[in-house]
Amino acid sequence: MAFKHTFRVRWVDTDAAGVMHYSNYFRQFEACEEEFYRSMGLSFKTIYEKYGIGLPRVEAHCNYKSSCRFDDTIEITMKAGEIGDKTITYNFQVLLKDSGKLAADGYLKCIAVNEKWKAIPIPENFVKLIRKHGT
Amino acid sequence: MAFKHTFRVRWVDTDAAGVMHYSNYFRQFEACEEEFYRSMGLSFKTIYEKYGIGLPRVEAHCNYKSSCRFDDTIEITMKAGEIGDKTITYNFQVLLKDSGKLAADGYLKCIAVNEKWKAIPIPENFVKLIRKHGT
Amino acid sequence: MAFKHTFRVRWVDTDAAGVMHYSNYFRQFEACEEEFYRSMGLSFKTIYEKYGIGLPRVEAHCNYKSSCRFDDTIEITMKAGEIGDKTITYNFQVLLKDSGKLAADGYLKCIAVNEKWKAIPIPENFVKLIRKHGT
Amino acid sequence: MAFKHTFRVRWVDTDAAGVMHYSNYFRQFEACEEEFYRSMGLSFKTIYEKYGIGLPRVEAHCNYKSSCRFDDTIEITMKAGEIGDKTITYNFQVLLKDSGKLAADGYLKCIAVNEKWKAIPIPENFVKLIRKHGT
Repeated sequence: MAFKHTFRVRWVDTDAAGVMHYSNYFRQFEACEEEFYRSMGLSFKTIYEKYGIGLPRVEAHCNYKSSCRFDDTIEITMKAGEIGDKTITYNFQVLLKDSGKLAADGYLKCIAVNEKWKAIPIPENFVKLIRKHGT
Repeated sequence: MAFKHTFRVRWVDTDAAGVMHYSNYFRQFEACEEEFYRSMGLSFKTIYEKYGIGLPRVEAHCNYKSSCRFDDTIEITMKAGEIGDKTITYNFQVLLKDSGKLAADGYLKCIAVNEKWKAIPIPENFVKLIRKHGT
Repeated sequence: MAFKHTFRVRWVDTDAAGVMHYSNYFRQFEACEEEFYRSMGLSFKTIYEKYGIGLPRVEAHCNYKSSCRFDDTIEITMKAGEIGDKTITYNFQVLLKDSGKLAADGYLKCIAVNEKWKAIPIPENFVKLIRKHGT
Repeated sequence: MAFKHTFRVRWVDTDAAGVMHYSNYFRQFEACEEEFYRSMGLSFKTIYEKYGIGLPRVEAHCNYKSSCRFDDTIEITMKAGEIGDKTITYNFQVLLKDSGKLAADGYLKCIAVNEKWKAIPIPENFVKLIRKHGT
């Protein structure tokens, strides 16, 4: 089941063209990911404590379709995509809630690393958790 | 000839992992693009005034290779890539100046739009300018 | 009656010291102000349309008391303070929800301007609205 | 002798009103402070290593006088102000380079803390250094 995160475009998120700056979609992808973990009682911090992994990004991508403007209500839908030995890809769809229009879609590819930032296999029970809640 | 833009990682650009936050690479891609235009005596504003186009992004991508840390000197190299009828792609390489290590690479694909945000062909003389200075 | 706005500290809001960067309190002051207007069915945009005023800041201040860390739940309480002929001051208190500790307090002083950014008296009915909901 | 730091207003720094967002002045105050330390061969990191202190902010203030717009060249002048037993205040003036108009002024009050974030007296030789270069 996909995970949903809703937010309003803040004034500070806009630029002189009157639209949400393109870099801020990546802030919101991560905010959605944080809320996804929280929905399972986790955070970047507790994932590190319980599963021994950090999850830095190795790839980030966004396709921009329609502009988001100040005060627009935005709904991000997130799904776990490909899960490799050491990487997890999260896919995002960004909807303009009022019109139902697709604003953007994209993905984040994360890699599991230990405390020395060395890539390591993702623990099996963490993979299970993501598969259960995020697909 | 590629265009180069150098900056230092600011404290505000870092996150609790002690590294530059992944979204900030996209701020710096754009900063590099702004400096590239400036090197030709242009800006987003004057491009609009002289050539009648805005250049919103339709695609943004980054591959992360090595972390950038506070106070690191970073050099971004930018080249114009594929130039279509209505789109320009700029490619970026992000180097850690001290070690010479590749920190990241990526691209921005921009689309030419008129004042109503309708996609239009890029004016020929603007294409020539980009080809002359950015490749 | 004071207005309250709650948020969680995002990863992107932290810096290499592991705490919320000091500039981000000002982003959250404004987010709180936006939610306050929203609670009255307004936004910066509709305030301009209905009352003919923009509200740029002339002064911003924050006192930092305790650090906010990643994932902390933060509650901002906002009250309208002094309302002059052309200015409104909003006062903010930032609480760490779990410990009840004061994280910060501060204020924003806004000035009413017309479409030419000339300072003008705040419309009486807007003042009444703020006094009714924000004090 | 006052320290000067020059920057151009980036697109991402603007908001839908076409001006630099009020919170970004605080990012630039700190950027100026970072460049000031750098001019002495220091950084937040090496200040901690050499003098055993961190310098979190206890107070931040800004008065806004004239808007800064995209691509404007901005010059910040910084001077060390009051230096107490445990605190240093830095004063900032923000000039619009082309017109010479004052855009803003403000200050940051920092407190010296040890590795446990406990306030401690500022080492005498650090005070001397600041007095020599920043006033």
